[in-house]
Amino acid sequence: MAPQLPSSSPQNPELRKDIINNKWVNFSPARSKRPSDFKSKSPVSDPNQKQSQECPFCIGHEHECAPEIFRVMDDPNSPSKWRIRVIQNLYPALSRDIEPQNTGLDNPDCGVVAGFGFHDVVIETSTHPVHLFDLSGYGVGEVLMAYKKRVLQIASFDAIKYIQVFKNHGASAGASMSHSHSQIIALPIVPPAISTRLAAMKEYFEQTGNCVLCEKPPKELLIHESRHFISVVPFAASYAFEIWIIPRYHSAHFHDIDKEKANDLGGLLKLMLKKMGLQLNNPPFNFMIHTAPVRIDDAHLSCSHWYLQIVPQLTVLAGFEVATGCHINPVFPENAAKILREVNVEDTEEICREDSERS
Amino acid sequence: MAPQLPSSSPQNPELRKDIINNKWVNFSPARSKRPSDFKSKSPVSDPNQKQSQECPFCIGHEHECAPEIFRVMDDPNSPSKWRIRVIQNLYPALSRDIEPQNTGLDNPDCGVVAGFGFHDVVIETSTHPVHLFDLSGYGVGEVLMAYKKRVLQIASFDAIKYIQVFKNHGASAGASMSHSHSQIIALPIVPPAISTRLAAMKEYFEQTGNCVLCEKPPKELLIHESRHFISVVPFAASYAFEIWIIPRYHSAHFHDIDKEKANDLGGLLKLMLKKMGLQLNNPPFNFMIHTAPVRIDDAHLSCSHWYLQIVPQLTVLAGFEVATGCHINPVFPENAAKILREVNVEDTEEICREDSERS
Repeated sequence: MAPQLPSSSPQNPELRKDIINNKWVNFSPARSKRPSDFKSKSPVSDPNQKQSQECPFCIGHEHECAPEIFRVMDDPNSPSKWRIRVIQNLYPALSRDIEPQNTGLDNPDCGVVAGFGFHDVVIETSTHPVHLFDLSGYGVGEVLMAYKKRVLQIASFDAIKYIQVFKNHGASAGASMSHSHSQIIALPIVPPAISTRLAAMKEYFEQTGNCVLCEKPPKELLIHESRHFISVVPFAASYAFEIWIIPRYHSAHFHDIDKEKANDLGGLLKLMLKKMGLQLNNPPFNFMIHTAPVRIDDAHLSCSHWYLQIVPQLTVLAGFEVATGCHINPVFPENAAKILREVNVEDTEEICREDSERS
Repeated sequence: MAPQLPSSSPQNPELRKDIINNKWVNFSPARSKRPSDFKSKSPVSDPNQKQSQECPFCIGHEHECAPEIFRVMDDPNSPSKWRIRVIQNLYPALSRDIEPQNTGLDNPDCGVVAGFGFHDVVIETSTHPVHLFDLSGYGVGEVLMAYKKRVLQIASFDAIKYIQVFKNHGASAGASMSHSHSQIIALPIVPPAISTRLAAMKEYFEQTGNCVLCEKPPKELLIHESRHFISVVPFAASYAFEIWIIPRYHSAHFHDIDKEKANDLGGLLKLMLKKMGLQLNNPPFNFMIHTAPVRIDDAHLSCSHWYLQIVPQLTVLAGFEVATGCHINPVFPENAAKILREVNVEDTEEICREDSERS
């Protein structure tokens, strides 16, 4: 997955290549205070401010939202006591009501495609002040299973080529609603960044005989291991304290996850968000599930491996990053991983125990 | 440059491909208020707050800065009365003091490169409250000629492969100092985004016999024309109200500009920044000069065409954009171009007259 790491952390700037995403990252210790001093200057405030009287995502306000797709509840006889709702986005980026252009496996040459697609919202809890990471690991697993269910529904549309699941937490990370939620956008094209990743994974497979994400990462980059997943700071992290959660089993599509693995991932995701929040002062963040396109040829499918990327928003992107696609990261990944490994989350044991009991 | 535009602006979402940068952009009118209502919610405040007593970029504070590279002045006998200073960045992303790895024209395979490079600052004025767009067109032209001079100096280092000139204006666009300045970063690799653009321009040339940026854009996208440059909203703009300034002469390298063209560009750049500031409530912004790598083969060189990109920062990038590289733009480019065409900058005539008189 990564070249040998030096035994002591470098003091000089260094460029590292993210071979999966074909990006170079500029590691620059001169631009950093001590890595352990990194804190969010704009922590996400408690969402208590907007109480359920005003929030359309809160229980009892369902009629203020765009149409519901499905809900998850404890008891089918009490549907009003829901735990998760998947609804349409009131301001969708794409429209499910226009005629799709079906252009086969490849993107069209013409340069313009009708914006047929889906843009849904997953309300992760019925209760306003609860964040995703306040749920139990099992509860996070339920949210992941709701993603899976909706992705499978959308994947049945022939014109849909790629489905992106993501979460924005905090206004400066793009969240317009403070009530805990994530989003699903389904596109009628394959974004070039995803094609690039697929091609890179295939090339690595052909050159080495291995899947790049199945290979064991250097222990310096490892944060935590669960039964089915590992969490690492990637060798060429674009963002300070960026985290990847990678399945230990080879799989191209997130949506092939089962309930046991979703619960295991739920616990690890909760643990990583807790560690990040404690270390970095509850920063705004995004997480994204990087999966393979809905329909791809077998050669690419067999070489692909999905993962989940967590990005705390600690700095702004400026002209250099916009222009070159190269990020400047002031924190070496091995330093970030060490710090995150050592953050003490009190209920780590409990999260893990609870998950194995519920699974 | 772009497929035929529809006669009336589309109401449905649409995906358009930026064929130069191999990116798809999701145009989404449902996510917008009226395009003419777009304003920055965090306008850049007047830099008067931090007066010259505290600012190391102000005249008289030169000793508080990192070493100077050169200065531009009216009178060589009064060097203390400088107009522009090019200095080292006090917190450089790359180091000029480490051993470069010379890896030839291509990027190294190994995945790690020593961070040899340059990171300089161009102080655009000696006076704190003056912004770049407050200078005359001729004054902006002088700043552009300072970029050129420094780029040529850096380009003489064999290990340098790509030089990025950019400006961050406003804290949320990445500017840590409010005193008007721009930056130059010189890299020992060619960023993949630049290789992608070079390859796309070459492919277009081979397929059509034309340079994609020499072709006349649809008049709906045009904002203004000067003697040597045009300004447009690109057909697949990633950002709302993004502007490209494109030379009307075919040229791969910004640094081949001459004084007359720099003055002409200075006037047009000033006009675009003024229009953007008036229409969008003085937004934070970035501009970037997209030029060819320092050393490239003749086949790519002859197909390349440099341009300057201006990006107002009106929205935050969220998980979807980070994951897919596809931006969601709520304003169709033809609508943005119309609005920017119609913004009345009182001294437009004066800017143009002054430039032609000084040239």
